[in-house]
Amino acid sequence: MPRMYKQAFVALVAELATANIIPRHAPIDYTGTPPNLSTLANFSLFETWRPRSHVLPAFGQIGDPCMHYTDPETGLFHVGYLHDGTGASGATTDDFVTYTDLNNNSANFILAGGKNDPVAVFDGSVIERGINGTPTLLYTSVSYLPIQWTIAYTKGSETQSLAIARDGGRNFTKLEHGPVIPSPPFAVNVTGFRDPFVFQNPQVDTLLKKRNGTEYTIISGGTHGDGPSLFLYAHYGGESDNFQTWEYIGEWWHEKANTTWTEAGWAGRWGFNFEVGNFFALDKNGYNPHGEIFTTIGAEWSFNPIVPQVSDVREMLWAAGKQSIVNGSIEFEPTMAGRLDAGKSAYAAAGKAVPASSQASQKSGAPDRFLTYLWLTGDFYGTLNTPKAQQNWTGSLLLPRELSVGYLDVVDNELSREKGSWRVDAERSNGTVTLATLNQKIAREPLAAFTSNTSAIIKQAGGRRSSGVTFDRSPSSKHYVLSTSITFTSRSNETRAGLEILSGDLETTHIYYQFSNESLVVDRSNSSAAAATNDWVLTETESGKLRLFDMPSANGTKIETLDLTIVVDGGIVEVHVNDRFALSTWVWSWYEDSRHIRFIAEGDDEVEFGDVTIWEGLVDAWPERRL
Amino acid sequence: MPRMYKQAFVALVAELATANIIPRHAPIDYTGTPPNLSTLANFSLFETWRPRSHVLPAFGQIGDPCMHYTDPETGLFHVGYLHDGTGASGATTDDFVTYTDLNNNSANFILAGGKNDPVAVFDGSVIERGINGTPTLLYTSVSYLPIQWTIAYTKGSETQSLAIARDGGRNFTKLEHGPVIPSPPFAVNVTGFRDPFVFQNPQVDTLLKKRNGTEYTIISGGTHGDGPSLFLYAHYGGESDNFQTWEYIGEWWHEKANTTWTEAGWAGRWGFNFEVGNFFALDKNGYNPHGEIFTTIGAEWSFNPIVPQVSDVREMLWAAGKQSIVNGSIEFEPTMAGRLDAGKSAYAAAGKAVPASSQASQKSGAPDRFLTYLWLTGDFYGTLNTPKAQQNWTGSLLLPRELSVGYLDVVDNELSREKGSWRVDAERSNGTVTLATLNQKIAREPLAAFTSNTSAIIKQAGGRRSSGVTFDRSPSSKHYVLSTSITFTSRSNETRAGLEILSGDLETTHIYYQFSNESLVVDRSNSSAAAATNDWVLTETESGKLRLFDMPSANGTKIETLDLTIVVDGGIVEVHVNDRFALSTWVWSWYEDSRHIRFIAEGDDEVEFGDVTIWEGLVDAWPERRL
Repeated sequence: MPRMYKQAFVALVAELATANIIPRHAPIDYTGTPPNLSTLANFSLFETWRPRSHVLPAFGQIGDPCMHYTDPETGLFHVGYLHDGTGASGATTDDFVTYTDLNNNSANFILAGGKNDPVAVFDGSVIERGINGTPTLLYTSVSYLPIQWTIAYTKGSETQSLAIARDGGRNFTKLEHGPVIPSPPFAVNVTGFRDPFVFQNPQVDTLLKKRNGTEYTIISGGTHGDGPSLFLYAHYGGESDNFQTWEYIGEWWHEKANTTWTEAGWAGRWGFNFEVGNFFALDKNGYNPHGEIFTTIGAEWSFNPIVPQVSDVREMLWAAGKQSIVNGSIEFEPTMAGRLDAGKSAYAAAGKAVPASSQASQKSGAPDRFLTYLWLTGDFYGTLNTPKAQQNWTGSLLLPRELSVGYLDVVDNELSREKGSWRVDAERSNGTVTLATLNQKIAREPLAAFTSNTSAIIKQAGGRRSSGVTFDRSPSSKHYVLSTSITFTSRSNETRAGLEILSGDLETTHIYYQFSNESLVVDRSNSSAAAATNDWVLTETESGKLRLFDMPSANGTKIETLDLTIVVDGGIVEVHVNDRFALSTWVWSWYEDSRHIRFIAEGDDEVEFGDVTIWEGLVDAWPERRL
Repeated sequence: MPRMYKQAFVALVAELATANIIPRHAPIDYTGTPPNLSTLANFSLFETWRPRSHVLPAFGQIGDPCMHYTDPETGLFHVGYLHDGTGASGATTDDFVTYTDLNNNSANFILAGGKNDPVAVFDGSVIERGINGTPTLLYTSVSYLPIQWTIAYTKGSETQSLAIARDGGRNFTKLEHGPVIPSPPFAVNVTGFRDPFVFQNPQVDTLLKKRNGTEYTIISGGTHGDGPSLFLYAHYGGESDNFQTWEYIGEWWHEKANTTWTEAGWAGRWGFNFEVGNFFALDKNGYNPHGEIFTTIGAEWSFNPIVPQVSDVREMLWAAGKQSIVNGSIEFEPTMAGRLDAGKSAYAAAGKAVPASSQASQKSGAPDRFLTYLWLTGDFYGTLNTPKAQQNWTGSLLLPRELSVGYLDVVDNELSREKGSWRVDAERSNGTVTLATLNQKIAREPLAAFTSNTSAIIKQAGGRRSSGVTFDRSPSSKHYVLSTSITFTSRSNETRAGLEILSGDLETTHIYYQFSNESLVVDRSNSSAAAATNDWVLTETESGKLRLFDMPSANGTKIETLDLTIVVDGGIVEVHVNDRFALSTWVWSWYEDSRHIRFIAEGDDEVEFGDVTIWEGLVDAWPERRL
C-alpha cells in the first residue's frame, strides 16, 4: 500500500515536469551592468549562455555522460547522461550533429528509487548485445550517501545492477533481482566502487585464457590509505548466465595514493580515487581491439589538509600502457599519460567504441572509432550556488571527440625524451624520434557540419600581429568555430601568443600559449562583468601543459606549429590544439558587445599567425526541441 | 516526499494495531456439533485452543523462533520470533516460565521495509557482545520473493544485515549501511541463503588457526542440483571491524540432494535445502564449547514430482559429528543424526547457549545450557486456510528444551549396532556398549513450575491395564502435564501401548508406542469433531521412529522402559519420551468433555504401566498480558 502512494507521487512529479513551461519575462539588457542574477525572473537566463551545438537536456542539470551505445537494431548512437540527480536521460543521433531526445523534455530512461538503487543511479555502461541480444545496462545502483574518498566508505553504498532497454531505449527496465556485483572485492576498504565500464578485448581474453568475446568490466575506485584503482571483473559462466555472475579478476590498475605520472605536470595527479574509468584499444585510425591499450580516468584529490567531503580537484586523465599477468591477475602499467582536458570543470569522460556500421559512420565514412564525451560541470561539481531557476539548465557535455594513437616525428632531444604525455615509439639514426601520444579531435561530423552549415565565414589575415589588434570583423554571435595556427621562432620565456575572444570594452578572455611554463592558458580574470555581483561566476585562470616539440626541417629544426581550434558556443569555450590537447571551460561573458577578437603576441617579435577562419552559427543540435 | 506518505501509512497501521480490541461475542457451545468455524464472529475462537504456558504473541501469527539472546546487561533471556510476516517480536524471561513482551501487544522490535530488507526480515541471531558491546543482530534481509528450493533462486533475494539493540532490545536499529554478507559464495547457485547463526567455538578457532573467540556464522541453504549445505563464515578483521566483514570459509556441511542418514527413518531426509541451521557443542551436562559438535537443521524436501513453490515436507533434524580440515576449509561429517521433533508441524528450532550466569539459571542452579525453541506452525507453513480472524492468533513455539549428550548402557546387539540416531561411544567385554545420543528435555524451570504450581494433581495407578479403560479421574481442563512409564516384556509386532487423551464420546487421540515399526504414534484420526466442517483441521497420524534398546539386567536383558511425558496445553500436545524423543502436534479437540484419558495396551499381555501423575493447570506464561 505505501508503494501505491509512492507511484502516484512519482507520476505527479513526472506530470509537473512535463508541463514545464517558460513564462514570459521582461527582456534582459545585455548592454547594462549585470545585477545579482538570482534576483531575475525564473527562466530569464535560459538563453544567455546556453550552447547550441552541445549535448545537454531540455531542462535541468546534466551530470556525468554515460550509458552510450549503438543500438544494433537501428544503428543509432545513444548518448546518455545523468540527469537532475534522479536517474539518467539521453538522446539518439545518426550523425553526431543533431540529436533526438529519447523522451519528451529529456525525461529519464532510468530512475532511481528501486530496491537496488533507492537513493541514486550512478554511471553505467551498456552491453550492446546483452540479455537476449537486447542492449543491457550495467550501472551503479546506490543505496547510501554520502560517498566520497575523503570519508569512510559506507558498506554497500554502491553496487552494480542490470537494466534492459525497452522501447528502443526510451526506458531501461531494471531486472527483478539484486545487484550482479553486490560488493567490492572481499575485505577491500574502498574509497569508491562505481561506474562500471563494459568491454570486450581479445588481448585480455588471451592473457586470462578466457573465451574469445568475454565481456569484462572495470569498476573505478580505490583503497583507503593505498590509492586509486580500477577493479577488473569478467563475465562468468557463459552466455546462459545472462550477465548474472561476474568474477573478480583483480586490480587491473593501481597507483599509490597522491602520486603522479610525473611531477612536471604533464598528466595531473593520480590522486586518491579513480572514477569513470574507460578501457579501450586504439591504433592510428581509431578503435582497434588489437591496438594499444588506453584508459581514461577521472582522478580525485585534494590539497592539504584533506577536508572530509571536499575533493578539491578532479582531473580527467588518460593513460596508455602494457598489460601483463601477475599472480593470475592482469595488471596495467602506463607507458604514457596525460590530461584528456585541462579545464577544471571538464571531467567524467565516457566513451564507447562506435563501429563503422553505425548510421553516423556509414554516412561519414568513418572507420571503427572510439568516441568520448566529457562533462562540463555547470556548478563546479555542485559547489556553486548558480541561478538554477533563472537559467533552468546547468552544465553540458562537450563536443564528442575521436581518439586515436597520434604519431609525431620530432627531433631527438631533451624535449622529446622527457617523461611526459607521450612516449618514444621509434628512434632513428638521423637524430629524430617518432613520438606516440593520444590524439583527440572533435568528431569529424560535427566539425564538418559547423564549417559547412554556417551563417557567415569570417576570414582574418594572419602574419606578424601586435597584441591588442582587433579582428577586422567580429562574429555577430557567441556561437562559432575559429581556426588558426601560430608559428614561433623562439622559446623565450617572454613569448606568448594567442587570441582574445569574447572581448569588448568591459570584458575579455585571453587564450594564449606561453613558453615560460609551456602552457596553454585561458585567462578569464576579466571575462565576465557578472562576476562582481555573482560569486558563482568563476574567473580563475585555466591552464594546461602543452609541449611544442622541435621538428626536423630543411635548415636544422623548427618549433612545432601551434594549430588552434576554438569553439565558442554560448558560455562554453573549447580550445583544441594540435589534435592532442584540449582545454574546455565556461566563459560567462555578459555584454552583447563582448564578441570581438584580438591578437595576442608578446615577447620577442617571433610570432607569426596563420590566417584565421571563423565559421559562425554552429548547428542547432536539437532541431526537434520546441522552445 | 514519497517517504512521508509511507511513514504516515506505517504510523496509521501501527495505531490500528495498537487499538486492537476484542469485541463481545456470543459464547460458543462446546457441547454441540462444531460449525464451519470461519462463520463465527471475529476473535470468538481466541481461547479455544490457545496454549497457556507456551510462547506466542499477544495477537497474530508467529513464525520461526530466532534472535534469542541473554542480555549481558540484565541477565534476562530474550526469546524472539518472526511475527505476522512483517518483522520480529519477542519477550524477556528471568525463569523460562513467565515472559514479558518487549513491546505492548507484541509489537515488533524490527520491521521489514528498510533499504536492505524492503520485502521481509527472515531469521537472524544475536551476537550478545556485539558492536560497542551491545547485542547485535545478524539477520537475513530480504529484497525479492518468492524464494524456495523448488524454484530458480533470485539473485540478491537474501542478504545478511546488522541491527543493534536499543532500549533494552525493544527496538533493533538497522545499521545505515548495506548487508555485511551481500551475496552467497561466488558463483554458487544456491537454493537458499538465510538464517545466519552466530557462534564462537574454540575447536573451530584451532582448526582454522583463527584468533580465540572469533565469531562465526553458518548460513543455511544448498545448491541447485547438488543438495543442502551450511555455509561457514568467519568474522574478519578483528574487533575494530565491528562485524562489517565476514570471510567465507567454505561449506561446513554438505549432503547430496535427496539423501538421508539412513533409509531406515531414524533421521528423516537431508532433502534439498537446509534452513535454520544451528551450531553448538554439548557434553552430558549441557553446553560446553569443548564438547561434541552438534547442529540442528530444518530440511526441506518433496515427494515426486517436485512442484514449483511446493515443499511437501519440512523436517527438524539434528546431527552430531566431527570436523576436519579439507582444502583449507572445515568440513563436518555426522556420526549420528536424528529428528529433533517428529511432528510434521514442528520445525525451525532456534537455540542459544544460555550461560549459568543468566538470571533464570542463577535462580534454578542450571549450568551452562543450550536451549532451543521449536516452532509449531499453526497453518502448516501457510498452506491452510485457518480461521485467522476468529482465532486471532496462529501458531506457537514449543516449550524450551535443554540439549545435552545422553549416554545409555545397553546390550551390544543388532539393535544397538544399527546406524541410527545414536552412536556407539564405548564397547565393553561384558557384551554391553555405551550409546551416545542427543538428549533433550523440557527445560527444568517450566517443568518444575508445572508440577509445583498446579491446580490439581491426579494420580492414576498403573499396572497391567486393558485398552480402553478410562482413568478414574479426568483433568478438568486441557492444560496439564502427564507422566508415566510403560514396561514391555515382548517386542511382538502386535504390542502397542500408550494412552488415549482428549478423549470423549465423539473425539479421542491415541498416543502409543508400537514395536511393529518401532514408532511412537499420535493417531489424530478421530481427534476433532471440527474436522468434518473445517478442512484446515488436520487429523493425519503423526509418527516417529523410537528404539527401545535391550538393557542389561540381573537375569539377562530387559527392554528399555518407555518414560512418557505428555504436555497438553490447549491445542498443543507435546509427547516426550526417554529424554531423547519428542513429537509435538496440534490436536483440535472440540468438545468440552473431551478431557478423559484411557489406557492403550494391545497385543500380548506383556505391557505394564507405571503410576500416572497428572499435574493440572500449567502456568500462565504471560501474567502481564491483559486479555
